[in-house]
Amino acid sequence: MQPTIRSFDLAHLGHIELLTPKPDESLRFFVDVMGMTESGRHGDSVYLRGWDDYERHTLKLTASPVAGMGHVAFRATSPEALERRVAALDRAGFGRGWTDGDVGHGPSYRFETTDGHVGELYYETEWYTPPPALKPALKNQAQRFPARGINVRRLDHLNLLAADVRALRIFFEDVIGMRTTEMIVLDNGDEAGAWLTTTNKSYDLAFTADHYGARGRFHHLTYAVDSKEEVLRAADICLEHGVFIETGPHKHAIQQTFFLYVYEPGGNRVEIDCAGARLVLAPDWQPVVWSEAERKKGQAWGLKTVESFHTYGTPPIEAYSGQRR
Amino acid sequence: MQPTIRSFDLAHLGHIELLTPKPDESLRFFVDVMGMTESGRHGDSVYLRGWDDYERHTLKLTASPVAGMGHVAFRATSPEALERRVAALDRAGFGRGWTDGDVGHGPSYRFETTDGHVGELYYETEWYTPPPALKPALKNQAQRFPARGINVRRLDHLNLLAADVRALRIFFEDVIGMRTTEMIVLDNGDEAGAWLTTTNKSYDLAFTADHYGARGRFHHLTYAVDSKEEVLRAADICLEHGVFIETGPHKHAIQQTFFLYVYEPGGNRVEIDCAGARLVLAPDWQPVVWSEAERKKGQAWGLKTVESFHTYGTPPIEAYSGQRR
Amino acid sequence: MQPTIRSFDLAHLGHIELLTPKPDESLRFFVDVMGMTESGRHGDSVYLRGWDDYERHTLKLTASPVAGMGHVAFRATSPEALERRVAALDRAGFGRGWTDGDVGHGPSYRFETTDGHVGELYYETEWYTPPPALKPALKNQAQRFPARGINVRRLDHLNLLAADVRALRIFFEDVIGMRTTEMIVLDNGDEAGAWLTTTNKSYDLAFTADHYGARGRFHHLTYAVDSKEEVLRAADICLEHGVFIETGPHKHAIQQTFFLYVYEPGGNRVEIDCAGARLVLAPDWQPVVWSEAERKKGQAWGLKTVESFHTYGTPPIEAYSGQRR
Amino acid sequence: MQPTIRSFDLAHLGHIELLTPKPDESLRFFVDVMGMTESGRHGDSVYLRGWDDYERHTLKLTASPVAGMGHVAFRATSPEALERRVAALDRAGFGRGWTDGDVGHGPSYRFETTDGHVGELYYETEWYTPPPALKPALKNQAQRFPARGINVRRLDHLNLLAADVRALRIFFEDVIGMRTTEMIVLDNGDEAGAWLTTTNKSYDLAFTADHYGARGRFHHLTYAVDSKEEVLRAADICLEHGVFIETGPHKHAIQQTFFLYVYEPGGNRVEIDCAGARLVLAPDWQPVVWSEAERKKGQAWGLKTVESFHTYGTPPIEAYSGQRR
Repeated sequence: MQPTIRSFDLAHLGHIELLTPKPDESLRFFVDVMGMTESGRHGDSVYLRGWDDYERHTLKLTASPVAGMGHVAFRATSPEALERRVAALDRAGFGRGWTDGDVGHGPSYRFETTDGHVGELYYETEWYTPPPALKPALKNQAQRFPARGINVRRLDHLNLLAADVRALRIFFEDVIGMRTTEMIVLDNGDEAGAWLTTTNKSYDLAFTADHYGARGRFHHLTYAVDSKEEVLRAADICLEHGVFIETGPHKHAIQQTFFLYVYEPGGNRVEIDCAGARLVLAPDWQPVVWSEAERKKGQAWGLKTVESFHTYGTPPIEAYSGQRR
Repeated sequence: MQPTIRSFDLAHLGHIELLTPKPDESLRFFVDVMGMTESGRHGDSVYLRGWDDYERHTLKLTASPVAGMGHVAFRATSPEALERRVAALDRAGFGRGWTDGDVGHGPSYRFETTDGHVGELYYETEWYTPPPALKPALKNQAQRFPARGINVRRLDHLNLLAADVRALRIFFEDVIGMRTTEMIVLDNGDEAGAWLTTTNKSYDLAFTADHYGARGRFHHLTYAVDSKEEVLRAADICLEHGVFIETGPHKHAIQQTFFLYVYEPGGNRVEIDCAGARLVLAPDWQPVVWSEAERKKGQAWGLKTVESFHTYGTPPIEAYSGQRR
Repeated sequence: MQPTIRSFDLAHLGHIELLTPKPDESLRFFVDVMGMTESGRHGDSVYLRGWDDYERHTLKLTASPVAGMGHVAFRATSPEALERRVAALDRAGFGRGWTDGDVGHGPSYRFETTDGHVGELYYETEWYTPPPALKPALKNQAQRFPARGINVRRLDHLNLLAADVRALRIFFEDVIGMRTTEMIVLDNGDEAGAWLTTTNKSYDLAFTADHYGARGRFHHLTYAVDSKEEVLRAADICLEHGVFIETGPHKHAIQQTFFLYVYEPGGNRVEIDCAGARLVLAPDWQPVVWSEAERKKGQAWGLKTVESFHTYGTPPIEAYSGQRR
Repeated sequence: MQPTIRSFDLAHLGHIELLTPKPDESLRFFVDVMGMTESGRHGDSVYLRGWDDYERHTLKLTASPVAGMGHVAFRATSPEALERRVAALDRAGFGRGWTDGDVGHGPSYRFETTDGHVGELYYETEWYTPPPALKPALKNQAQRFPARGINVRRLDHLNLLAADVRALRIFFEDVIGMRTTEMIVLDNGDEAGAWLTTTNKSYDLAFTADHYGARGRFHHLTYAVDSKEEVLRAADICLEHGVFIETGPHKHAIQQTFFLYVYEPGGNRVEIDCAGARLVLAPDWQPVVWSEAERKKGQAWGLKTVESFHTYGTPPIEAYSGQRR
């Protein structure tokens, strides 16, 4: 047994840029159905936030011909921590250089994962200051509770598809400095999925094998709510709005998250989740390894995983133009 | 604005030793009402755990003439981190030397706080291995869900009374390496309360001013459940068992915890809580400072704080033999 | 032991007319905070409904110089049942004659209670037909789930203040045909409260002694939500909107309802409640009688009942112009 | 539109006799997993109850070579109501004569449905008197909250399989006096399911077409809990106990019940459900008719109904010895 803490250089998942071919409908989904708040616009992008996200935004919604993820950004714990990670990225050859920053945050360092996903690291950020109408009654809360739609509280995690799960896991462990809490290893030794964290949440990032062997695709992003009751109500709200429900609400065996998966109008998969009081506090947590046989049991309470959950990602495979494994 | 992360040397709150003049009744309370599991006995002590605590125990219940806290222990993130903290304690003159360890963990370093509370730091620990009857269905869970009483999941935090809150806060920040997320500052500048964390939970430790100016007393310990529904049901269960409910369920304004406070048969205050999806992820979180006026508004939804919450602690002031401020 | 079913002539509580000196603000409260839907306007009145009320409206909000209840209406189970109750009212001398009906329902028979409250009985009603934008996804639901504010589901019950509780109880039992499920009897034999039902809900109507001995005042009306979690969230929403929270969320000892009491801007008390799965199914249910001593224990989990809950009603006693007992 | 209230002669579903080839294991399931209380034994039967059932028992568990339902009993609203129903049964030729009563209730009148299920009607009953250890803290509750297993509150409904759904529906409407709230009518006009009530719950009894055309089989019985959170936790508890989960938790489109279906060790299907605040209050409720196309959409949030839910019943078809349609 050895410590699995890799480093403390990353503080948390910062934001995700989502690409949508239906920007107006996607915006309506995130505002009206998810209950998020618009906190900025620039170019083809709208910036959005959950009611208790402390930064100005956690979602950047960008008009694009094809759905998918633009980039994912993590915030470093300090300027020095950021420098350490930048150096590690450069050493390993994954660095792509500094940006000038964006709405809501300062300069960020771009990188490309082993699988071709675009990531960014940054430290300087803008704490959200609510306008008077959105000022919360309690000062330890970032923004007023919206009481609209699903009322998602904060960005929770994202899930990437990968042509090579093992390579991507090692990249995020060794170069980015995250640690793995759970994983799937097939009978032939191939890794089919991995869940990594840089906080006390049991995961901030997951990746699962791309059914088509495509590189760099996106599986889903997730916003957290406070209770399972709210996840159930989220399903009602999606039903009323004609939002496609892919699967759930149910409980994952892996990570035990209570989940609901839907597709936003642009085609990207979005999850609403609740983890209860589960946290990974142990500094020497060893990855829980799930076998092929265990995975075949389905979700926690026996729900068979729907086929699309294993195959669908964005860009949709029909629109995918990259190389396959 | 400056970073408030103090260090990453402490991983989390490890366990609390609770002293009880009614050991049998206290044990029945923690097993039957709280739904905890006995995981060891030694001398006058019984060791207990919540169903998802990863270590062998998080509560050490020790027979004693007077109620109160024996000691509180924090686990370090690594052997090196432990050494760093021991050195800091020694430098500051608070160290009291190494123990030989205890049931469930290796050698620990004893210290005494500015207020006279006894603490310990340790790294080596025993991961809990459930006996066959308590093996969980899902391997990423420490123990089978008991389905008995309140079913507390894991140790969450503790609250100490302090003759000098400010000194105690500075001690835990500077010597132990925790950071403050919220605090109460009175109109005269006195600090009346502080909430500190060493994880992404918004607090692992709190202290509030001792009404009597006594040193080193104990306010409460807290176990977390997964939902507010379970906190409500916990109140029903306490009512059925004749357990004294001091206040709640209600929501704190400070930290927004959904709480229920009861007294275990030995006289110590015990809280059952749920924090929802609230976490402190920002590495540069600045303490939220509550004024005397704000505090007078009562709890989040207006409940007036009961008087005993400000005055009662263990040992009860009648049994207190130490010096006062 | 004798059967307490009085008759099956009343089907359920139909609607309540609430008088408000601040009609615009009251309307905003019921629509934005309570999440209700406007379903008609006529004269100085606006008609409102919860999302699963089957009739066109359950609340008639009428502009008035002074707050209070305009009238309460019950729906009969059939035209014949209505005739039987009208005959009983006439025989007993409480009938006040037929109305021409109102928005949403046909002719109603007016009566005045022993305490001077105005009531109506009717059978003909208008089932709500949602406009296309409010059509629900599931056809067994009256209206689309609004996902706005508290999202109250349906009218649940009302509570009247009475100068003479016993007389009012006997009137509702003998003349109107309801049955009593719980009551408070003081040490001197006086009745201080009664809870009556005409359905399998454990109460549709309650009355408690008017502290000032005033006749015909109003205590509160209640809308039900599906879960206790939603009652808790309702408290958050009221806090954010600056709505005065009088007491709760907590659980009543009597009837075990999980409650939240607030004042709408016009000054009337409004409750949001959840009863869980509790129903009174027994046809021979005997009233549960609470003594003065039992009542002094406070609410279910020990919350002391706030003073205003015993004294405040509408019209406020300062504005009350009627006779006292 | 015509009134659908048939009569007020039946008060509610009283109890169900369940036959089990594994009586000891079934008993352990109902006591340890469901959290029910044993309240009597006689011959090969054990009598059981939920913590808020007002009668002595709601489940009679009887050892038998083959699983299935022994009989279902409904309580009448009065002795006179019972006489009226007995007369109706006799007139229609379904009566089978009086019993001498059973543990917990007085004489009952036996009948056989059009499909061959055995039913009973009774009025005289024994209200449950808890022994001291099970006395509740609140006097308006039948028994102490057990805080064990799933903690089911009260018997909710049952579901029968029928060779001829239409005939069975008409029997229960016309002879027994219940009313239909929802039903399934196939494209060819055949009735595939019906949900009937004799209370304000939206159903107390359901029947669905027997896939094999067998007569008189049993589909499931249901106990209610107070919240959807408890249904979710019930799934965890079943998982931990190795109880087979057939489907759920999820929400039915028909009746919108939040459900969990499991098989007790004897092979009978058992449901744990929560209806939220949904009630049928309208005296003139018209049956909601679901078409074949609507039914194909699956459950409320899109879950495809598992095949066994349409085919499995008790006695299992392999053990069925009766005639088929």
